[in-house]
Amino acid sequence: MKRIGILTSGGDAPGMNAAIRAVTKTAIHHGLEVFGIRYGFAGLVSGDFIPLTTADVDHKISLGGTFLYSARYPEFAQEEVQKKGAEQLRKHGIDAVIVIGGDGSYHGALALTRLGINSVGLPGTIDNDIPYTEYTIGFDSACRTAMDAIDKIRDTASSHHRVFIVNVMGRDCGDIAMRVGLASGADAIVVPEKSYDVKKIAETLKRGFADGKDHGIVVVAEGVMSAEDFREELLKYGDFDARANVLAHMQRGGSPTVEDRVNATKMGNFAVNLLLDGKGGLAVGMENGKPNTHDILDLFDAKHKGDFSLLDVNEEMTSLN
Amino acid sequence: MKRIGILTSGGDAPGMNAAIRAVTKTAIHHGLEVFGIRYGFAGLVSGDFIPLTTADVDHKISLGGTFLYSARYPEFAQEEVQKKGAEQLRKHGIDAVIVIGGDGSYHGALALTRLGINSVGLPGTIDNDIPYTEYTIGFDSACRTAMDAIDKIRDTASSHHRVFIVNVMGRDCGDIAMRVGLASGADAIVVPEKSYDVKKIAETLKRGFADGKDHGIVVVAEGVMSAEDFREELLKYGDFDARANVLAHMQRGGSPTVEDRVNATKMGNFAVNLLLDGKGGLAVGMENGKPNTHDILDLFDAKHKGDFSLLDVNEEMTSLN
Amino acid sequence: MKRIGILTSGGDAPGMNAAIRAVTKTAIHHGLEVFGIRYGFAGLVSGDFIPLTTADVDHKISLGGTFLYSARYPEFAQEEVQKKGAEQLRKHGIDAVIVIGGDGSYHGALALTRLGINSVGLPGTIDNDIPYTEYTIGFDSACRTAMDAIDKIRDTASSHHRVFIVNVMGRDCGDIAMRVGLASGADAIVVPEKSYDVKKIAETLKRGFADGKDHGIVVVAEGVMSAEDFREELLKYGDFDARANVLAHMQRGGSPTVEDRVNATKMGNFAVNLLLDGKGGLAVGMENGKPNTHDILDLFDAKHKGDFSLLDVNEEMTSLN
Amino acid sequence: MKRIGILTSGGDAPGMNAAIRAVTKTAIHHGLEVFGIRYGFAGLVSGDFIPLTTADVDHKISLGGTFLYSARYPEFAQEEVQKKGAEQLRKHGIDAVIVIGGDGSYHGALALTRLGINSVGLPGTIDNDIPYTEYTIGFDSACRTAMDAIDKIRDTASSHHRVFIVNVMGRDCGDIAMRVGLASGADAIVVPEKSYDVKKIAETLKRGFADGKDHGIVVVAEGVMSAEDFREELLKYGDFDARANVLAHMQRGGSPTVEDRVNATKMGNFAVNLLLDGKGGLAVGMENGKPNTHDILDLFDAKHKGDFSLLDVNEEMTSLN
Repeated sequence: MKRIGILTSGGDAPGMNAAIRAVTKTAIHHGLEVFGIRYGFAGLVSGDFIPLTTADVDHKISLGGTFLYSARYPEFAQEEVQKKGAEQLRKHGIDAVIVIGGDGSYHGALALTRLGINSVGLPGTIDNDIPYTEYTIGFDSACRTAMDAIDKIRDTASSHHRVFIVNVMGRDCGDIAMRVGLASGADAIVVPEKSYDVKKIAETLKRGFADGKDHGIVVVAEGVMSAEDFREELLKYGDFDARANVLAHMQRGGSPTVEDRVNATKMGNFAVNLLLDGKGGLAVGMENGKPNTHDILDLFDAKHKGDFSLLDVNEEMTSLN
Repeated sequence: MKRIGILTSGGDAPGMNAAIRAVTKTAIHHGLEVFGIRYGFAGLVSGDFIPLTTADVDHKISLGGTFLYSARYPEFAQEEVQKKGAEQLRKHGIDAVIVIGGDGSYHGALALTRLGINSVGLPGTIDNDIPYTEYTIGFDSACRTAMDAIDKIRDTASSHHRVFIVNVMGRDCGDIAMRVGLASGADAIVVPEKSYDVKKIAETLKRGFADGKDHGIVVVAEGVMSAEDFREELLKYGDFDARANVLAHMQRGGSPTVEDRVNATKMGNFAVNLLLDGKGGLAVGMENGKPNTHDILDLFDAKHKGDFSLLDVNEEMTSLN
Repeated sequence: MKRIGILTSGGDAPGMNAAIRAVTKTAIHHGLEVFGIRYGFAGLVSGDFIPLTTADVDHKISLGGTFLYSARYPEFAQEEVQKKGAEQLRKHGIDAVIVIGGDGSYHGALALTRLGINSVGLPGTIDNDIPYTEYTIGFDSACRTAMDAIDKIRDTASSHHRVFIVNVMGRDCGDIAMRVGLASGADAIVVPEKSYDVKKIAETLKRGFADGKDHGIVVVAEGVMSAEDFREELLKYGDFDARANVLAHMQRGGSPTVEDRVNATKMGNFAVNLLLDGKGGLAVGMENGKPNTHDILDLFDAKHKGDFSLLDVNEEMTSLN
Repeated sequence: MKRIGILTSGGDAPGMNAAIRAVTKTAIHHGLEVFGIRYGFAGLVSGDFIPLTTADVDHKISLGGTFLYSARYPEFAQEEVQKKGAEQLRKHGIDAVIVIGGDGSYHGALALTRLGINSVGLPGTIDNDIPYTEYTIGFDSACRTAMDAIDKIRDTASSHHRVFIVNVMGRDCGDIAMRVGLASGADAIVVPEKSYDVKKIAETLKRGFADGKDHGIVVVAEGVMSAEDFREELLKYGDFDARANVLAHMQRGGSPTVEDRVNATKMGNFAVNLLLDGKGGLAVGMENGKPNTHDILDLFDAKHKGDFSLLDVNEEMTSLN
């Protein structure tokens, strides 16, 4: 192996650049050449490759987004397109590829491996919805951004004795909602994986005000319903001065946190060593603070498990006895 | 004069607590007693007064919101209610009042002065829409929060070559949009006071991409239209991957900036000295970095003037020659 | 059990207030009364107790420091003083105590347990130097603050092609240095637990500049030596434009991170449940994201184990092959 | 005029990149070519010029430091060296130059103008010590960084009832100390331009604790004396638990604030228009929120005037009556 490629796929996430940096610096240390593949699998097929040096990545560790860009490219599900991609790589002498991204990335990495290009996937998505890893690159930064925003919103909620319903990201996965909700002192947290009881939430909020609390916060994963819809539900059970708020896209950006930079770096470094060992078709994850591997195939049948103890803890602190 | 009261009215703004602190510490330095009036004019009428010591305010300078709370209270427009308020103050031996808030606060301060309670108004609103002051308490903090959010959004915009339409606060006043737009490197800024040309904005965005820019940002004051509506307008003139984003309530909260803390402190300190000089019915503002005063009456006929040179500068940098 | 006490001891750490909040809210949920013991063990002996309600703690989750205050009190090593403390607790009807702090706190908690007051210790220190927990309350926040500062310092280092030697906290424990160093893209990390080779570090820095890097960062745990002393060592091996920087006390403060708030909340909630189960003499820690317990006695013979893989990863990325 | 150059000189300051961006985009709008001159006047003499496009600067507005680098180059005081620089510029067809930096930059800009290359200086330094401008690029960001650090330090000060003596930047100019001190709620502010009375400061601190304050902060400009020396002075007048803290280099870095970005952009845009009007030998400053100009020669005889009302306000709030 002399030359590896690296690409980012799917939605951008803080820490992707830190992972690219770690891959580049580790690979160069081992005498490899590194090529950045721009615009994800689209660029892989079109041959949009740029050589990466350590100087190219030295300032990237603190930057959000992905400097290699990302792009939607559903065409890569087709076998002919995959073959065309593998050809491009061979033409450029690229022997192996590291893919950073969400669910879709793994299918691409597996396809390339089957076509003889060893490929490894890193979990890069703010949603934390990848199986076999307790953590995805960008998750902690997204939680940080959401929590900082809610800390600000709480100032207004308190000044006016209001309730804010805040939508955070999470279509099918409530991990951001649960962590951010607990960290923000939310009165209630609503996630896609669990049922919820608006009436009970209304009672919790009322009890809070009765106990002298000067504000209320309900964190709702956007996959459950819009903050505005939830607000309307809530008003059926109480006469709250309630407002709906959608945090939206800002949760995807920003300088990565310590946790995201450290884990992105560990996994990027680890992935290069897997390729050096001649391995492919693997998904890298974090388990008890250490990088682990699973066959990508195993991921497709598995489901990420959220830490629902966060909900229990929050309810034990906020609900009626 | 032995005892003064202080209240916050209207929407909360970062720096209100810093102003309360400055009023309290300055007044105590001059041998006065200070009472915090909770919930704005509502609390003034109901007599919700709490004594304030320096220890009560020592930690407040860095906190957003208003620890004296605020509340809507349109009833205070009625003369009998105003008289009831003045009675409450006299009953508690309060000789003068400082009011921090937006437009409505000044009417209340003037009414109290006419009833024999010297009152002074400080401009406390993130919107910067008060006449005769180049600056309102909270404006710089709101701009900071909006700019930080757009810096994050730009990460995603760049990673995917997208255009983001971002709504910032400002119903009739484009000051936040103009300052934040310029500071965020927006391609275009849309404010209520000026006409705009969606077609021209689309051309500017296209030219940006043609010149190698990897993203587009349009900042739209929410008083003009929703980001979503603007997005739909924009798509008539080009095939952009465009998203709408509403920053909303978080712009009101958060720890105040240096500028907000310094100006709130200067004005709070200045207002106490006005009362010590036996003055009332005055609005305090900032002019060339120094506190100034105007008769509150003059404010009602005047209109805040925005710094529209910001639009000219931005257009000179971004538009076609 | 009807009434529990809570105190903070040793140096303050971000997240202590979040833990106090979790203890208070959980205990009240279970029908207990909660008393805050101010100034650590000193206040325990002198009887400086204040009742805590949910309203008292509702705004505390986002605040650094400890609102119950902390104080040095070596006298609590003496048995008579411990007995006096236990008496105070009994006089106030306090049946059990939760102690948040570093090493010294555990001795106090064990002493109280032996005197019949079930007590549980939570790891509250930025240094992460407690055995049997992968994480201490405040550690992640301290790393965040140090990393943010180094991100700023890097701007100047790059603008002038300088090397900065940065002292971060850590007398005997290099955990902050390792995590912050990796997250900051440091060229080298120097910790108390491992030997280091200044000459090799100088070569790494030279190679960085030769490869086109425009700056150098060396993170040195303050327990190893002062940044200034390290700088002088370094200059023996190369003609660097090098500056020494000590981050110092700011690392102890600031609003806690998501990680610190979540873990402090989980452990505070868990500790109350231990007391409800009639347990005492236990140290709570975090293991694979879940609260665990160990006998406090076991802690005294054990030693915290740092994640030295961080050093290996960093070296694999920065050093000569 | 067809082609202009831009360089940064002296210590880096947040907002320099925003100014380079504004110059580049404005100049290109007017049909000019722009060259970045790297490493300040050293690069001007050696001919280290790089062409700048709008795409090169589009992401720079939010970054601290200077991407054109800076360097000490006292040789540029010599006339032969200046002539060599002017020749380099002519050889590359550069007709005019914009210099961003502190005091030294203006001498260079004047020298070039006298040699026939119209040059304009922008005030780029965190110290705010340039005459005829109420504001220098980087000043507000440095204040922000120092205030944020002191907010963190206050957490520890309060938790332990300590006094912190904090050194902020400012050799001869107390502007950072005054603004940061007022914004941080300092008990006392010590600047180079004014005498101070340690005994009186000790009395103020004692009175604070007597009034129930749980901490003390003294902000000392580093040009007055080291925080450690001040601490020793202070201990002669009271038995404080006092610590010394030096904020140091981090004050120079970080993403620029709204104020710094806006003013850097306004002045950069304005400077290009001056050159288009055929002007040179001018210093651009900010006066009442608008760019102004003065002959560089006038600057050399003038002295920056700080806003010492900040000290008066602070003393009126903290000192004994």
